[in-house]
Amino acid sequence: MGADGRPTLGIGMVGYAFMGRVHSQAWRSVSAFFDLPVRPSMNALCGRSAEATARAAGTLGWAAVETDWRKLVGRDDVDVVDICTPGDSHAEIAIAALEAGKHVLCEKPLANTVAEAEAMAAAARAAAERGVYAMVAFNYRRVPAVALARRWVAEGRIGRIRHVRAQYLQDWIADPDFPLVWRLRRDKAGSGALGDIGAHIVDTAQFVTGERLTEVSALTETFVTERPLADGSAGLAAGSGSGARTGTVDVDDAALFIGRLSGGGLASFEATRFATGRKNALRLEINGSAGSLAFDFEAMNELWFHDHTLPEAEAGFRRVLVTEADHPYAGAWWPPGHGLGYEHTFTHEVRDFLEAIATGTAPEPSFDDGLRVQRVLGAVETSAARQSRLTPVEDV
Amino acid sequence: MGADGRPTLGIGMVGYAFMGRVHSQAWRSVSAFFDLPVRPSMNALCGRSAEATARAAGTLGWAAVETDWRKLVGRDDVDVVDICTPGDSHAEIAIAALEAGKHVLCEKPLANTVAEAEAMAAAARAAAERGVYAMVAFNYRRVPAVALARRWVAEGRIGRIRHVRAQYLQDWIADPDFPLVWRLRRDKAGSGALGDIGAHIVDTAQFVTGERLTEVSALTETFVTERPLADGSAGLAAGSGSGARTGTVDVDDAALFIGRLSGGGLASFEATRFATGRKNALRLEINGSAGSLAFDFEAMNELWFHDHTLPEAEAGFRRVLVTEADHPYAGAWWPPGHGLGYEHTFTHEVRDFLEAIATGTAPEPSFDDGLRVQRVLGAVETSAARQSRLTPVEDV
Amino acid sequence: MGADGRPTLGIGMVGYAFMGRVHSQAWRSVSAFFDLPVRPSMNALCGRSAEATARAAGTLGWAAVETDWRKLVGRDDVDVVDICTPGDSHAEIAIAALEAGKHVLCEKPLANTVAEAEAMAAAARAAAERGVYAMVAFNYRRVPAVALARRWVAEGRIGRIRHVRAQYLQDWIADPDFPLVWRLRRDKAGSGALGDIGAHIVDTAQFVTGERLTEVSALTETFVTERPLADGSAGLAAGSGSGARTGTVDVDDAALFIGRLSGGGLASFEATRFATGRKNALRLEINGSAGSLAFDFEAMNELWFHDHTLPEAEAGFRRVLVTEADHPYAGAWWPPGHGLGYEHTFTHEVRDFLEAIATGTAPEPSFDDGLRVQRVLGAVETSAARQSRLTPVEDV
Amino acid sequence: MGADGRPTLGIGMVGYAFMGRVHSQAWRSVSAFFDLPVRPSMNALCGRSAEATARAAGTLGWAAVETDWRKLVGRDDVDVVDICTPGDSHAEIAIAALEAGKHVLCEKPLANTVAEAEAMAAAARAAAERGVYAMVAFNYRRVPAVALARRWVAEGRIGRIRHVRAQYLQDWIADPDFPLVWRLRRDKAGSGALGDIGAHIVDTAQFVTGERLTEVSALTETFVTERPLADGSAGLAAGSGSGARTGTVDVDDAALFIGRLSGGGLASFEATRFATGRKNALRLEINGSAGSLAFDFEAMNELWFHDHTLPEAEAGFRRVLVTEADHPYAGAWWPPGHGLGYEHTFTHEVRDFLEAIATGTAPEPSFDDGLRVQRVLGAVETSAARQSRLTPVEDV
Repeated sequence: MGADGRPTLGIGMVGYAFMGRVHSQAWRSVSAFFDLPVRPSMNALCGRSAEATARAAGTLGWAAVETDWRKLVGRDDVDVVDICTPGDSHAEIAIAALEAGKHVLCEKPLANTVAEAEAMAAAARAAAERGVYAMVAFNYRRVPAVALARRWVAEGRIGRIRHVRAQYLQDWIADPDFPLVWRLRRDKAGSGALGDIGAHIVDTAQFVTGERLTEVSALTETFVTERPLADGSAGLAAGSGSGARTGTVDVDDAALFIGRLSGGGLASFEATRFATGRKNALRLEINGSAGSLAFDFEAMNELWFHDHTLPEAEAGFRRVLVTEADHPYAGAWWPPGHGLGYEHTFTHEVRDFLEAIATGTAPEPSFDDGLRVQRVLGAVETSAARQSRLTPVEDV
Repeated sequence: MGADGRPTLGIGMVGYAFMGRVHSQAWRSVSAFFDLPVRPSMNALCGRSAEATARAAGTLGWAAVETDWRKLVGRDDVDVVDICTPGDSHAEIAIAALEAGKHVLCEKPLANTVAEAEAMAAAARAAAERGVYAMVAFNYRRVPAVALARRWVAEGRIGRIRHVRAQYLQDWIADPDFPLVWRLRRDKAGSGALGDIGAHIVDTAQFVTGERLTEVSALTETFVTERPLADGSAGLAAGSGSGARTGTVDVDDAALFIGRLSGGGLASFEATRFATGRKNALRLEINGSAGSLAFDFEAMNELWFHDHTLPEAEAGFRRVLVTEADHPYAGAWWPPGHGLGYEHTFTHEVRDFLEAIATGTAPEPSFDDGLRVQRVLGAVETSAARQSRLTPVEDV
Repeated sequence: MGADGRPTLGIGMVGYAFMGRVHSQAWRSVSAFFDLPVRPSMNALCGRSAEATARAAGTLGWAAVETDWRKLVGRDDVDVVDICTPGDSHAEIAIAALEAGKHVLCEKPLANTVAEAEAMAAAARAAAERGVYAMVAFNYRRVPAVALARRWVAEGRIGRIRHVRAQYLQDWIADPDFPLVWRLRRDKAGSGALGDIGAHIVDTAQFVTGERLTEVSALTETFVTERPLADGSAGLAAGSGSGARTGTVDVDDAALFIGRLSGGGLASFEATRFATGRKNALRLEINGSAGSLAFDFEAMNELWFHDHTLPEAEAGFRRVLVTEADHPYAGAWWPPGHGLGYEHTFTHEVRDFLEAIATGTAPEPSFDDGLRVQRVLGAVETSAARQSRLTPVEDV
Repeated sequence: MGADGRPTLGIGMVGYAFMGRVHSQAWRSVSAFFDLPVRPSMNALCGRSAEATARAAGTLGWAAVETDWRKLVGRDDVDVVDICTPGDSHAEIAIAALEAGKHVLCEKPLANTVAEAEAMAAAARAAAERGVYAMVAFNYRRVPAVALARRWVAEGRIGRIRHVRAQYLQDWIADPDFPLVWRLRRDKAGSGALGDIGAHIVDTAQFVTGERLTEVSALTETFVTERPLADGSAGLAAGSGSGARTGTVDVDDAALFIGRLSGGGLASFEATRFATGRKNALRLEINGSAGSLAFDFEAMNELWFHDHTLPEAEAGFRRVLVTEADHPYAGAWWPPGHGLGYEHTFTHEVRDFLEAIATGTAPEPSFDDGLRVQRVLGAVETSAARQSRLTPVEDV
């Protein structure tokens, strides 16, 4: 129970690299901006090295440190386990935590394989029966502009969806001398651009449209097959490759796929880390019978809306600055036109997760949603391996 | 021989609808802006109705009228035959004209089938032996920004091409009550969005990259299968459908395909007339190891260029206004910043065609280039019919 | 009487440099796109050098040549005199032509001084009594997007106007070695950026708002006071300065002014040729109680419209592509999304002028409108000379 | 001394409305992202109502509460006083705090009058002698894109500055029924748009150029002179006006001014809250002999740069996403393309302030910088009252 009479929820986080840093900022900030029925307490951080973890805990504001995730899961002062590790450990930690009665927030992709994702989704369904909740961290759903897009599609303002055009374009490995970091290794990351950023556009597209991809035809490619070995366990960070020794890239550098939506529309997806000049261009355009929407995360506070019901002479894509008080999440922050940044999406995410826990409501995106994405990724890999043959995506 | 001592080249045009109007403006304007070794003379216009053709000739500035294209081809004062009819008549007219020793400018797509395109390409090769030239009217090559893109790719400024992202988005048939004009009928148009606008992005992408699409995986769709019958032979023009009676749309409303380029890159294409709010968005983005280019015809005087060889802190997509004196074609017109419009691409096209004829050089895009596009379109239709299976594109 | 039974109007043009070239294209093209009650005939071109004028006439399509503008005015086959010379000769030619019963189209600025402009306006009023019309060539009124802006303001869609923000930014003399062309000499051009491009934004702002500037406070500056002498009478063209000899720039390089509108709003104007990277950025933004409009000629086919009567969560500046059939002028050209270029504004201008003559209606912008602009420019120069003191602008 | 061995600096903040909320987030976040030699501790918050202040302290994370700013200043655990109140109280609090040996961070505008600002600047100079520092919170200097602009100007990449074009456009009081909040009352706010947002663009322009405005000519206007009385002391928040009773707006709704820079360039400024559709458009464009820069806070992660030293055919405004590791501040946050938001500018501000205190360096912007801005605002008001007469700005 906090000083203000609200119950406290103890948070334990595993991992403190890129995702751990941004999750920490979300846990630290959420109570100052959102009036929540519970108050999160940053109780324990888990990492492999005691010293480095202690240093990170000091910087990021965690009260205690663990070096074994099982101990973290077992702590009495941990009610929520926040998993910020690479995908190869998600299933084991998440399932153990759920079985121990801890709510779980798990970074995406849910897992590295469909089988793991299925086991996690099953564990989440079982836990939900006992009031223990799981959520997968597709943070881009919490960009105000993306949430507004979903709202407008649900309200019918776009009409029947004919086209989805989704791209996630980055360029951080375009240089062949960029080292072989863990995100380029199948054993750690499961896949390359596909699972890392392709997963985001699949979830975002399915979320905004409220439809599913039912079949896909795909091409994948690895442009640079040998890279200098990375020092340590660097994630996104470049550093200098150690030069002398190289290793084989065994994940995709880029994945392209086209497919059909459950509502009859056509969809096109592209995930790549070789789009020079595009830094974090998660783009989504939807064309419907009544209107269109366009979004690019590089200008994350804007949603472009074409209202096709207006007279032709007046119509056009309008730039809606998604910073008004009645836009999703935006009212909690600043006056109109004072934009938000990347980490706000995580603050919104933990806000929704805390709200769901406090009110006993299943949070979204669920592990089933995570599994839905995983099945699309699986179908993409199958299609790519079978001469791009149109491959059905099984529903959850 | 004109008054200024330059030889005159007599032009005869078949068709005077949308394409005929814009070609007329090109023939009428070219000599005022480009210093050419020959002077075109707008000698004869051919259409089916004598009265309507005479009226069009008066408006558009043609000296005489024919109602049988064979007569036009046979006229002594016609040195060049400009074919602006639907695709089903291209092969017959073009081959006859070439055999009659007339240079031919033929609207795109070159033909409605690969077989016709092959026959035309063969005729063009044979004619070229006799100094008679043929050109297919892929006018978007003559947008100064597109020509500049080609120049920069050829100079190596983009480096090795990793990605091509091409879209041609329109929305003029999104309304199910839009009538069944000839462009929606297979017998006239051959295909739908694929042949009409998909052809343009295939040619533009192959032109700018200097590479070929070697294999494709495709999806096509007809969203609206029954439409009101159109009155007369309307092209793009809407008019009111006759209401009571409807007909079946037997062409694609949209075509999506992904594929590989001869240089090892990945490519994505989308042609649709259902992208509400997009009016004539021919878009091309190319990502290479040394830089990227992006173009959208809706802002046709701009080419966006990212120079990836600059320090990261200074790099970004720059908006080059392609109106400088040393940009392709631009120096012939107005001072910097005074943009050009759609029909200028045709003026550039006939300028290049006239220059080629006068200097005895084979013009481009050749009928072989047109055939190359046709083969891609054929592979797209084959793939779409075979569960999107990756389908090779035979080279010319 | 033309072949089609329409009366012919003989056109005589004085000057064939930049403005003459673009006016020629307008006269040449207008009948092919607009269904006019009269048909212009390009009968005579006037220039100082017989040889150069004959060459220009051949290129631009004029039937005869004169070397004395008085002879041109006196020709029986000249019904309209189109004045494309520098501002110092406008008054003399225009007044003589009007007195000779010839309709006059005169390039802007109307004159180099307010006194000349007053004499011209008086002559135009007198001529109008006799059915002889005069028009000043503020071509930017004929950009479809600008005409649409005017339509929407007149319909009340912008509400009460609070702010006008007008800029005309170029950079062609930013280099101190650019030579002293006639546009930089007071005797020829009257003023510098002020009269050349400042005149355009004053007229465009007054046209779109339907209001007048009632008082102004101004600053002017000449950044580069000595420049190499130009060879010949070059206009915009750079060429190489002759190096050894220089001359004094006695006009402004840039002019800034703020002021009040007759409706109570505030306005800000800036005209400069030193805005590096801006090529022909004629920009206008209007903020009213019910909405806002924004325009930039560098993207001339777009009008940005904010509808302030929409709910805040839906509002935003929308990019209207001004290429729809019911947009001003646009229906005469191409399908939606196929943009127009710079010279189309002149084709629209002569279209409206011919229509006015044929129907006996006074064309706009009238010489009175030209005088209104001249009075603003005069007040700007007065204010700049008097410590920026707020200076009233007398109405016509 | 914190747990990690770094000295702790106790922060006391006065005011907890809009500015207080955003400053709190900055104090809360700074240590997690920047490696600082001191650690701020949020020790005490001061407000007038004990209850409301306690509630705010709980939400925002302040350890203790005061209701008298003198007590806050007197607390032993307060080393820094952060002033987030309206301008009428700045001078008194800041001078008292500095005299009590407390470092001061003061919101802008520094004061409501030049006289107050002078007293504050004098106090700051005296305090600095004793190692006690003062800083005025012009947060927009800490937008990474603005800091990058400053860097490039200082490096000479823009060359000699010819033009500055600065606007701060908002629309939150365009509705005449918006109530008379404190920002619209002279006794509290000093002036209207001028002091609130005009101050920002004056400081930002002087910061980025490294030059001063030396003389100005100005117009100000109050469009809506009577407004419903506000309930309570609402700031930006609208609420419902109480309807029956109204009060007089005695500050400007908009201020326009033009002037000269110390380096010889021309500058144009506009501050308004009536620019419908513009939400927080702090815009700055600088044109220099070697290049140009353009910025709009509504897209705060972008800086547009035109390099005028490039060949004309390659040049154009490039969109630099200011999210690279070697961009100012950006390296502390996320990977490229993951943008920042409004409050980050405050985190950067307190980071620089803490760094300055810890290293004994005078922080910037200093109270002298605040005074410089105040003198410009004073000259603007003088000019506006004297028929826009060009009015010199005295240097500090």
